Amino acid sequence: MKSGEEKILLSHGNGGKIMHSLIGELFLRHFSNPILNEQTDAAILATGGDEIAFTTDSFVIDPIFFPGGNIGKLSVCGTVNDLAVAGASPLYLSVSFILEEGLPIKELEAIVVALAEEAKEAGITIVTGDTKVVHKGKCDKIFINTAGIGSVRKEDRHIGKGQHIRPGDIIIINGTIGDHGMAVMGARESFHFKTSVISDCASLNHLIREVLDNSNGVKFMRDPTRGGVATVLNELAEKTCLGIEIDEPALPVSPGVTAICELLGFDPLHIANEGKVIIVATPEAAESILETMKRNKLGLHSAIIGRVVTDHPGKVVLNNETGGRRIVDSLTGDPLPRIC
Amino acid sequence: MKSGEEKILLSHGNGGKIMHSLIGELFLRHFSNPILNEQTDAAILATGGDEIAFTTDSFVIDPIFFPGGNIGKLSVCGTVNDLAVAGASPLYLSVSFILEEGLPIKELEAIVVALAEEAKEAGITIVTGDTKVVHKGKCDKIFINTAGIGSVRKEDRHIGKGQHIRPGDIIIINGTIGDHGMAVMGARESFHFKTSVISDCASLNHLIREVLDNSNGVKFMRDPTRGGVATVLNELAEKTCLGIEIDEPALPVSPGVTAICELLGFDPLHIANEGKVIIVATPEAAESILETMKRNKLGLHSAIIGRVVTDHPGKVVLNNETGGRRIVDSLTGDPLPRIC
Repeated sequence: MKSGEEKILLSHGNGGKIMHSLIGELFLRHFSNPILNEQTDAAILATGGDEIAFTTDSFVIDPIFFPGGNIGKLSVCGTVNDLAVAGASPLYLSVSFILEEGLPIKELEAIVVALAEEAKEAGITIVTGDTKVVHKGKCDKIFINTAGIGSVRKEDRHIGKGQHIRPGDIIIINGTIGDHGMAVMGARESFHFKTSVISDCASLNHLIREVLDNSNGVKFMRDPTRGGVATVLNELAEKTCLGIEIDEPALPVSPGVTAICELLGFDPLHIANEGKVIIVATPEAAESILETMKRNKLGLHSAIIGRVVTDHPGKVVLNNETGGRRIVDSLTGDPLPRIC
Repeated sequence: MKSGEEKILLSHGNGGKIMHSLIGELFLRHFSNPILNEQTDAAILATGGDEIAFTTDSFVIDPIFFPGGNIGKLSVCGTVNDLAVAGASPLYLSVSFILEEGLPIKELEAIVVALAEEAKEAGITIVTGDTKVVHKGKCDKIFINTAGIGSVRKEDRHIGKGQHIRPGDIIIINGTIGDHGMAVMGARESFHFKTSVISDCASLNHLIREVLDNSNGVKFMRDPTRGGVATVLNELAEKTCLGIEIDEPALPVSPGVTAICELLGFDPLHIANEGKVIIVATPEAAESILETMKRNKLGLHSAIIGRVVTDHPGKVVLNNETGGRRIVDSLTGDPLPRIC
């Protein structure tokens, strides 16, 4: 684009010449690949004959730039991770923008660049997209929707479903929890505390592929985003009619997140993550999976945090350092809206 | 849902219990099918071994209810039509909602019902989705994104691309133009004219499938939405480096659209459609394709409107009744924002 002063106009969304110049000069320039460059209404794709996984997410985060990323990077990570935890290898991504009239094109470009870089990092190809522009005051700067397609090998098809989980299975996470929600909250002007917490926003497909290639002991995976680790584990306990026990001392939480949570009365188990995966594995495979995870830069602080039990079916129980226990519920209120 | 008074709360988007009850009581109830009911982050899909087509669209229309449909119906038609004009048979749909806090749940339900009904009509299965809620004033009631996957037969793979178009090829449309844009405009409070124009919003995949099954003479198809027929034809002329001639007397325009266009100085060729397809066909196949189209309820008023020529390469020329000619440009300004 030509200068740092240009802003999005309603005519950037009109389907005509001005919109085509935005698509050509900004989107195609950064997302360029043979399939997208065809500029057909629907991209024609090869999937290699496997079954495919398909997912979508809309991103409405506030603020759109935060420590550790921006809405563009987030839009890739969120969808790539949903594919990866389904046992799929990400292949193709759609990207759809809803832009507020007046959005500085420089900000849009920074978002587009981050989106393109993260797609490259994750190895997913942006093949189709859409752009709409709405009047000032009718959306909040920029909303992005991505939808993703991945290929799933037959042997990995059960991994998003969790129907093979049994008592004794081990719960592993790839690092500290709550960093994303806290980093976003800290970046808000209305939040009157300074924090050095950085979002964990990352694409987990390579780490997950390494785990699946090195072990057949994975029973289930899920990324604990909105609602945090507590919500994923509660859903799992309910679905399996089994209990889940978490050991508080084993739970990786950064000092920054601990400090804010104590100050404001949040539970890190309820705070959103964007670069974390919960893996449920057989007891035999757990240690080897943990070692594989620790060798990846996104798994350096991986830890075994709990286990599946026959006690208290449908409930998640936290064992604390002093031998006390408490039930950990799903998120019910909404302490942190628009963190993704 | 329980009453007509309930409104969307921020907690409907929090990823916790309240959001799950919205998903269960509203979305799963109306969209229910075995794949969606699994409620995994990514749906696992069979595609039958063909290549697949993949497309996405965000819908930000204002108003969200208009004569002939609502944003829910539109969200299916838009994506189904993008698949269909690529020569694909629609298979799977993702649906992602961005909801404004305070949206009456009754309105959301009407939208969800229309969406479910149109998906059934088109024969596409809703397999994955997402819901976000933003503060009041941060979006305009409801935005919907859909992404669609379709299967493409080898022999239909060229149809979205237009690389086989030659001089002499015939341009056909399946009925009157400009109805959608005018119906939406007429439904706006700020629009001070009454009109009986009804949106043409419809899924065209069955009509298109009948055409493709009855003829191998189709060179290209495209649905003229934002930017209208003029924009599609201009893109085609530029892409092929050929000229396009349109005969004004042959162009189907309803009396209501003609009246408003004359009154307000719009060109129906620039007004959006949501149930129209432009088909470019060989001269030999054109009449038989026209007959096939006329047998479908969405093609009763189909007409041959022009042809591809060697003259004026890259330009679209309109021949009027009195023997005059004028160049028809792409849309450049934005007379009608947020019509899709």
